[in-house]
Amino acid sequence: MSKAIKQNLADSKKMSAELFCLTYGAMVTEMLKDYEDPKDVTIQLDKMGFNMGTRLADDFLAKNANVPRCVDTRQIADVLCRTAIPCYLGVSATASSWTSGDREFTITLESNPLTELVQVTPNLVSAGLSYSQMIAGAIRGALEAVHFKVYASATDSGSNTEIRIRFDQVLKDSLPAGEDD
Amino acid sequence: MSKAIKQNLADSKKMSAELFCLTYGAMVTEMLKDYEDPKDVTIQLDKMGFNMGTRLADDFLAKNANVPRCVDTRQIADVLCRTAIPCYLGVSATASSWTSGDREFTITLESNPLTELVQVTPNLVSAGLSYSQMIAGAIRGALEAVHFKVYASATDSGSNTEIRIRFDQVLKDSLPAGEDD
Repeated sequence: MSKAIKQNLADSKKMSAELFCLTYGAMVTEMLKDYEDPKDVTIQLDKMGFNMGTRLADDFLAKNANVPRCVDTRQIADVLCRTAIPCYLGVSATASSWTSGDREFTITLESNPLTELVQVTPNLVSAGLSYSQMIAGAIRGALEAVHFKVYASATDSGSNTEIRIRFDQVLKDSLPAGEDD
Repeated sequence: MSKAIKQNLADSKKMSAELFCLTYGAMVTEMLKDYEDPKDVTIQLDKMGFNMGTRLADDFLAKNANVPRCVDTRQIADVLCRTAIPCYLGVSATASSWTSGDREFTITLESNPLTELVQVTPNLVSAGLSYSQMIAGAIRGALEAVHFKVYASATDSGSNTEIRIRFDQVLKDSLPAGEDD
């Protein structure tokens, strides 16, 4: 674990990633029982993540007064990969695959605490379950809280998790509300 | 945070307690929508916790080879409060209120990461929701994995969470299986 990640973690209360992983697994299992279609679980995870992201944005801004205001997607990606993701997930991340004039990019997590101790069966994935979509939703919610509207989707493959971000627009005068469940 | 807790956390992968708290809150909200009776949510949280506890026991034993085998409830309480709870929840805990010839005791969490950012409405509590029952279930599951059958129930009051443990028996020759959902 790098020094920068340790520093960021020091600013936040810490707990075991194993416990989080198992709790998340229990939650997704519960949701798969309730929703007939795994696609609906993905949608629900995305909404949950969005609502959490708007709250985490406040928490993040309160704890990281030194982070400069972002003016482009390169800076957004930099704050997400260097500060926000290490702070909340305890792992480092990198941005790559820039396309559409820097409007789209991919964040690759070095490892994913959500999938560390669980195995998502391939038939659920092919039926539309994006197991880690809560992370993508949280990024979308956090960015919307600071007036950047983006689309975000997560893809797990083995121990590798990628989040594709597509920038939509800067929101001018609306404050984000929680999304309906 | 004490040195002992820091040391225990160093052995485990770490992440933000805030993210865990919000995820757990989203899960309980989801379950309250699905189950009509908050009491059933408590039962379900207990079962989830039990299944997680049996897995965390393996993880714990693998990472804490120096922890001695417990022969009485005082030693069990000691390992829970000094090592296991700090390791997984990132908070310290104390055992007190010993009754029934040391067969019953109460573990008080110094703070509870599950309830840090959420407010459980009093009507849900009076309707039977034990918000932090997953922790009690996890303790029950972890102890059953090492052949101690106990009953455990959690009570939140303000920022204070107490888990009452009642020792039942030492299990001789059965290995615990996951409980049915």
